[in-house]
Amino acid sequence: MSFILVSEVGPRDGLQAISRTMPTASKHRWIAALADAGVKEIEVGSFVSAKLLPQMADIAEVVLRAKTISGLHVVALVPNLKGALAAFESDIDKITLPVSVSEPHSLANVRKTHAEMIEQVRSVVALRNERFPGIQIEAGLSTVFGCTIQGVVPDDDVIRMAEAMAEAGVDEIGLADTAGYATPVQVRRLFHRLQKAVGELAGSAHFHNTLGQGLANVVAALDVGVTTFDSSMGGIGGCPYAPGATGNIVTEDLVFLLESMGLKTGIDIDKLMVARSILQEALPGEALYGYLPSVGLPKGFTYAEATA
Amino acid sequence: MSFILVSEVGPRDGLQAISRTMPTASKHRWIAALADAGVKEIEVGSFVSAKLLPQMADIAEVVLRAKTISGLHVVALVPNLKGALAAFESDIDKITLPVSVSEPHSLANVRKTHAEMIEQVRSVVALRNERFPGIQIEAGLSTVFGCTIQGVVPDDDVIRMAEAMAEAGVDEIGLADTAGYATPVQVRRLFHRLQKAVGELAGSAHFHNTLGQGLANVVAALDVGVTTFDSSMGGIGGCPYAPGATGNIVTEDLVFLLESMGLKTGIDIDKLMVARSILQEALPGEALYGYLPSVGLPKGFTYAEATA
Repeated sequence: MSFILVSEVGPRDGLQAISRTMPTASKHRWIAALADAGVKEIEVGSFVSAKLLPQMADIAEVVLRAKTISGLHVVALVPNLKGALAAFESDIDKITLPVSVSEPHSLANVRKTHAEMIEQVRSVVALRNERFPGIQIEAGLSTVFGCTIQGVVPDDDVIRMAEAMAEAGVDEIGLADTAGYATPVQVRRLFHRLQKAVGELAGSAHFHNTLGQGLANVVAALDVGVTTFDSSMGGIGGCPYAPGATGNIVTEDLVFLLESMGLKTGIDIDKLMVARSILQEALPGEALYGYLPSVGLPKGFTYAEATA
Repeated sequence: MSFILVSEVGPRDGLQAISRTMPTASKHRWIAALADAGVKEIEVGSFVSAKLLPQMADIAEVVLRAKTISGLHVVALVPNLKGALAAFESDIDKITLPVSVSEPHSLANVRKTHAEMIEQVRSVVALRNERFPGIQIEAGLSTVFGCTIQGVVPDDDVIRMAEAMAEAGVDEIGLADTAGYATPVQVRRLFHRLQKAVGELAGSAHFHNTLGQGLANVVAALDVGVTTFDSSMGGIGGCPYAPGATGNIVTEDLVFLLESMGLKTGIDIDKLMVARSILQEALPGEALYGYLPSVGLPKGFTYAEATA
């Protein structure tokens, strides 16, 4: 097996960190271009209060239009039961619930204690089971590699929360480096423990590139069998409640890394550059990151070969 | 064993890529500050024609002053026999001979065919053996992961050249990603083959960060037992004959990666920042790279523990 799922989170993690609001039509053009480049899963936004995050006020419409793209797996972030209901009614494929392992971060981010958050996840799962059985629920455990507020986050706390999520009935449990603190040793250790604790439910790696260690962490995660990576085009994004925690790992550089390692993503890099120019046009003057876009593909580059 | 040697190449690889010339006194202040931060090996410049690289015209004086720093291993790049004689007479600790595995790059860089270069290395080793027995000679195999001129560079060519270098009597053989094309899979494969082919002579990894994959490649190289890494402060540097191949991996980010992986470098990151400000003062307005310098150490960061 050598297919890796690159899950684009730019329209959510990226756009929430940028103060101006991308017009709905631009979001759709960007998402369509990403899908056209071969991106198979996109987190298109969050079902949150438009007062809190006006950038996401059009989420229902964005999901509706994204769902018209054939073959695309459409995901949204959902912080609570109210958001989950709206997301489920939008006919989304999957929701991601952000669950901070650092309790101070949880309070800052979703204003909930651990106990309250676990209860919330249980209610979301119950709602899904009762009325929307086809929709997947992912718990995205955040701040698992350290927190800008709490500092060190013990591995045991992460595993305890992962077990609580498994018990609450989610379908997938991912680990997110919200603060950009993860190191390759930690990544190997924690994903290994996650797999031991929750087996098949162990999911994606969500790295930020705050300290420039993002792709190094991807290599470490690949070593322990992680097959889904979140990233954002142009490296836009960050968490408003984790000061200094800028941008996700850059989709363009991630795809290049994976393909050049012989791991198929199904993504065409030239078409990814088309999506990048659409993003740049939609956010004129916004800083976009990434090495590959400015340097180009190396001489002699070949895509990973298709597996039978 | 968990000590990793970070070999600073900024004063050579960095400064040769910058058109203005750093004053000798500034070079010494910078080198002294690097050593003070715990950097144990520094490539302080090149013994090349001052006409070709005026930035390196003061190399003999730079070596002389660097040698006054207690405990510092002083290295210089040397492209030919003439340079080697000058280097040996300067009482240097080690020289690095750049040997391109891509013949077109060899012709562009040192104007020599493979046969001529191998002959040159033999002469340098003979001179050392006869008159300067205490000085080490490293062959730095360049363009081993691909070349901006030739494109793909076959692994077999790399190993053949490594064997020729071993036969010529060098003490150490490093692999350099001159173009910044290396991928983690290639890194593991090629260092593994190098170790099989030349055993104990297998040496350092020299990565550029052109495509942003530098630290990912470090993680891969650590996996196969590489224990010496070249890097340059602020990521300055590049090869004037490999267009687009900018900057080495950033020393500051590398040290952070290693220490946070539990691998001791002996380098103090705060003092490294002092050296960085000296570099910035000496090259006002010059772009310095690196994530750690702008973000700072994560909350809860601890250095790797000392090994007994």
